[in-house]
Amino acid sequence: MSGHYPRNAWYVASWSHELPVNRPFGIRILGNPVVIYRTDSGRLVALEDRCVHRLAPLSLGRCEGEKLRCQYHGLLYSPDGRVVEIPGQPEIPERAKVHAYPVVERHSWVWVWMGPAELADETLIPPAIGLDHPDWILGSGHIDYQAEARLVHENLLDFSHLPFLHTESFGPPPSFSTERPKLTALERGVRLERWLCDAQPVFKTDTNVDGWTDYDFLAPGVLLMWSGSFPVGSAAEWNYGKPDYSRSIRDASFTCQAVTPLTDKTSRYFFSWGPHATQGNAALRDVMMGIARKAFEEDRIMIEAQQGILDATPDPQVMPMTCDRAITIFSQVMRRLARA
Amino acid sequence: MSGHYPRNAWYVASWSHELPVNRPFGIRILGNPVVIYRTDSGRLVALEDRCVHRLAPLSLGRCEGEKLRCQYHGLLYSPDGRVVEIPGQPEIPERAKVHAYPVVERHSWVWVWMGPAELADETLIPPAIGLDHPDWILGSGHIDYQAEARLVHENLLDFSHLPFLHTESFGPPPSFSTERPKLTALERGVRLERWLCDAQPVFKTDTNVDGWTDYDFLAPGVLLMWSGSFPVGSAAEWNYGKPDYSRSIRDASFTCQAVTPLTDKTSRYFFSWGPHATQGNAALRDVMMGIARKAFEEDRIMIEAQQGILDATPDPQVMPMTCDRAITIFSQVMRRLARA
Amino acid sequence: MSGHYPRNAWYVASWSHELPVNRPFGIRILGNPVVIYRTDSGRLVALEDRCVHRLAPLSLGRCEGEKLRCQYHGLLYSPDGRVVEIPGQPEIPERAKVHAYPVVERHSWVWVWMGPAELADETLIPPAIGLDHPDWILGSGHIDYQAEARLVHENLLDFSHLPFLHTESFGPPPSFSTERPKLTALERGVRLERWLCDAQPVFKTDTNVDGWTDYDFLAPGVLLMWSGSFPVGSAAEWNYGKPDYSRSIRDASFTCQAVTPLTDKTSRYFFSWGPHATQGNAALRDVMMGIARKAFEEDRIMIEAQQGILDATPDPQVMPMTCDRAITIFSQVMRRLARA
Repeated sequence: MSGHYPRNAWYVASWSHELPVNRPFGIRILGNPVVIYRTDSGRLVALEDRCVHRLAPLSLGRCEGEKLRCQYHGLLYSPDGRVVEIPGQPEIPERAKVHAYPVVERHSWVWVWMGPAELADETLIPPAIGLDHPDWILGSGHIDYQAEARLVHENLLDFSHLPFLHTESFGPPPSFSTERPKLTALERGVRLERWLCDAQPVFKTDTNVDGWTDYDFLAPGVLLMWSGSFPVGSAAEWNYGKPDYSRSIRDASFTCQAVTPLTDKTSRYFFSWGPHATQGNAALRDVMMGIARKAFEEDRIMIEAQQGILDATPDPQVMPMTCDRAITIFSQVMRRLARA
Repeated sequence: MSGHYPRNAWYVASWSHELPVNRPFGIRILGNPVVIYRTDSGRLVALEDRCVHRLAPLSLGRCEGEKLRCQYHGLLYSPDGRVVEIPGQPEIPERAKVHAYPVVERHSWVWVWMGPAELADETLIPPAIGLDHPDWILGSGHIDYQAEARLVHENLLDFSHLPFLHTESFGPPPSFSTERPKLTALERGVRLERWLCDAQPVFKTDTNVDGWTDYDFLAPGVLLMWSGSFPVGSAAEWNYGKPDYSRSIRDASFTCQAVTPLTDKTSRYFFSWGPHATQGNAALRDVMMGIARKAFEEDRIMIEAQQGILDATPDPQVMPMTCDRAITIFSQVMRRLARA
Repeated sequence: MSGHYPRNAWYVASWSHELPVNRPFGIRILGNPVVIYRTDSGRLVALEDRCVHRLAPLSLGRCEGEKLRCQYHGLLYSPDGRVVEIPGQPEIPERAKVHAYPVVERHSWVWVWMGPAELADETLIPPAIGLDHPDWILGSGHIDYQAEARLVHENLLDFSHLPFLHTESFGPPPSFSTERPKLTALERGVRLERWLCDAQPVFKTDTNVDGWTDYDFLAPGVLLMWSGSFPVGSAAEWNYGKPDYSRSIRDASFTCQAVTPLTDKTSRYFFSWGPHATQGNAALRDVMMGIARKAFEEDRIMIEAQQGILDATPDPQVMPMTCDRAITIFSQVMRRLARA
């Protein structure tokens, strides 16, 4: 795997509801085979998905209480990765152990720490918002990309593409591409904020609004975004800074997104979106998710084609533009974390 | 890409009718991503299909008058390859330019020059015959090969395979493989001429004929072929040389074919075929195209399987035979042009 | 191809009934393209599947009596691999010859010797039992694996996986994994023997039995296995050694299996199975084949997933266990034969 991605980070492996009890789930993260299972007691366990014996995937195995049994030759693994039973062989070698990945369930996501377990630090989990948060009515999903995660990151770090790629879905005003957001470098990412003044929101209305959007894009690839519409003039009133969301008159929404590198050229994209509970309902959420699905499909087609061009280019060079500044900041964060 | 193919040459990229106005068309030629579009004014433009910014394919873009806009972040390209607009960024870097390929529409084909633009020489376009030529009633099509273009060239340079591979389609007499055509080396290719005396033509008849076929196979992979049937004895009358086509009694036909290397192991094969206007009609043309489709499918199966064997052979060696002489001549032409 | 597989060995290329007269059959063995055909006289011929001229596959060719004609340019091959006719060319070069593989039909299988022809030794063909043997009522089939043959060998050399992987098909008692078989090293393989005492056979019954199984696994990947049920107490009576099969009271069955490496990561698995003629009939054979098909599908899913993990592992290491002893013995045999 490319050295672009830090190992000392929490990667989203799945939505919580994608992991029922006693059903082992296999995934690649940074190219590493990982099996995750939820035990009888509800505990999550994440192990290297590779039996020590002959490298069969444990994700084809069977949960037994807190343990996981390889269904090839029956080795039984405890949650710490140790083999605790070898059928027909009393002695268990010292080396009979797979890596146990720190795994945490939070904000409706299952997070896996890909670095050394002793460095796992739960305070580094991005402050996402789960599907059960009472303030928001959120839909969720995931799609797979035949493209490197970095290309999806870059897509999410530069919304100047919205008026071009998403005319048929989000359909934002052209100013989305002509006006640059305010950027703030964060310890583990970058914050983007912008007003779109005297414009139509995604859900067209009779009167224009001042639209606000702000999002944090955090290592290793998590987006947390808030949007809302305010009466025209509000931007000036707030001195073009962050408004008080409680005074949004409509369109208050939130989205959480995460991009996980599976292998060098594949990735999985997790997303939620929906209205604030005071400004929408499940029906609106479903309309929004329909729009999002269409937009993400537009992204997927473009990004996979971009990957195809990259693959056909012997020494690919990008040309920096002013819309790339958030990408540059985020890349520096990723490089710093990857070196650490 | 293999160095077998000259860059200083015109390659067929599509049939003219495959390129409607304002619909960008992406193709690989010699491994290079190329986008071609027809502007409002009818002009053809061929550009490197790779945005300078982040390498998105311009073939997913949108035509705007004479220009082409990348639909990822909105860079606008003029027909000379220069970026003339970057949304939200007044300054356009000097390097914001993709390669503009010389492109010419002629003989119903769109030709792209893959070498330096300043060397493009339209006199090097092979003298093909377009679908609108009044003398011929031509059908057309194209098929893609999962095989190197060179293998298709070799197929077309040696018709001794006809009595074996095409018994179910063209069904020529055995002498097609036992008698060698007359060969003439050309500046940019090779000419093949032959009489098949006192034999049945493709479209069987009561009386035998002397059949004549001659074709030029020209760099970088274009075939122009004329056939016709004459009364038995004509070959001798013409001293076994080229007859006067106007004295053909039946079966006068013409075919244009072009093989374009897409990548190292894929190629696109363009073809037309049909009767002379005085000896056939659209119905006969359709029958002929049906036969050709069947024959080209026989070719495709053999050549893709041949490619499979080549891929499984560590150090592939061919064994020259007398039927290969046209291949040898053409290979020398290609080598000479590729070195230039 | 990996050096794991000896060239001086007979590999199963097909079932006899898969090779009708005059229909050339193409296969890869150890990565080598091989064409096999059955002549008018019933003789089998196996040649390098690669025309000397331009490497077209002879398996797309046409049988002509005892000979095989390449259907690309018509070269005619005699059974010894020599080109005996080149259309339109009287002179045949000395080098116009492909490798002729020794090929033998025996025990309903077609065996190909992959080493130098002069070393071919028919006594090395494993003593399999053909589908026409009067003692057994055998079904047959084959399946292809997207996995290296070695992984299938290892599966067949260690039946401790049965109680885990095949609970839904063979459903053997747990002791299959907890008790190790008796092993005997053979000149070209390994013999495995075991009693399962006072247990239920695959076909459940009212009373327990002492079940016996013994099989030889022979280079380059052939399994010959006999099973039978005896009254409880028989194992002790036979001093836990090999019983007299004629005293089996039920479940007497035989299976022949062969695993042929096609390429580095693909293989073909041939198998027969069925009851002894005195203890079953065609209906029972069909039930058994249904169970086997289910079990082999369970194997295929696990082994192909194992191959996927291996491919994702930079430096794969296995951890030896006591159940691997037959694998170790067989690997030593294969290494010794591969060096020879």
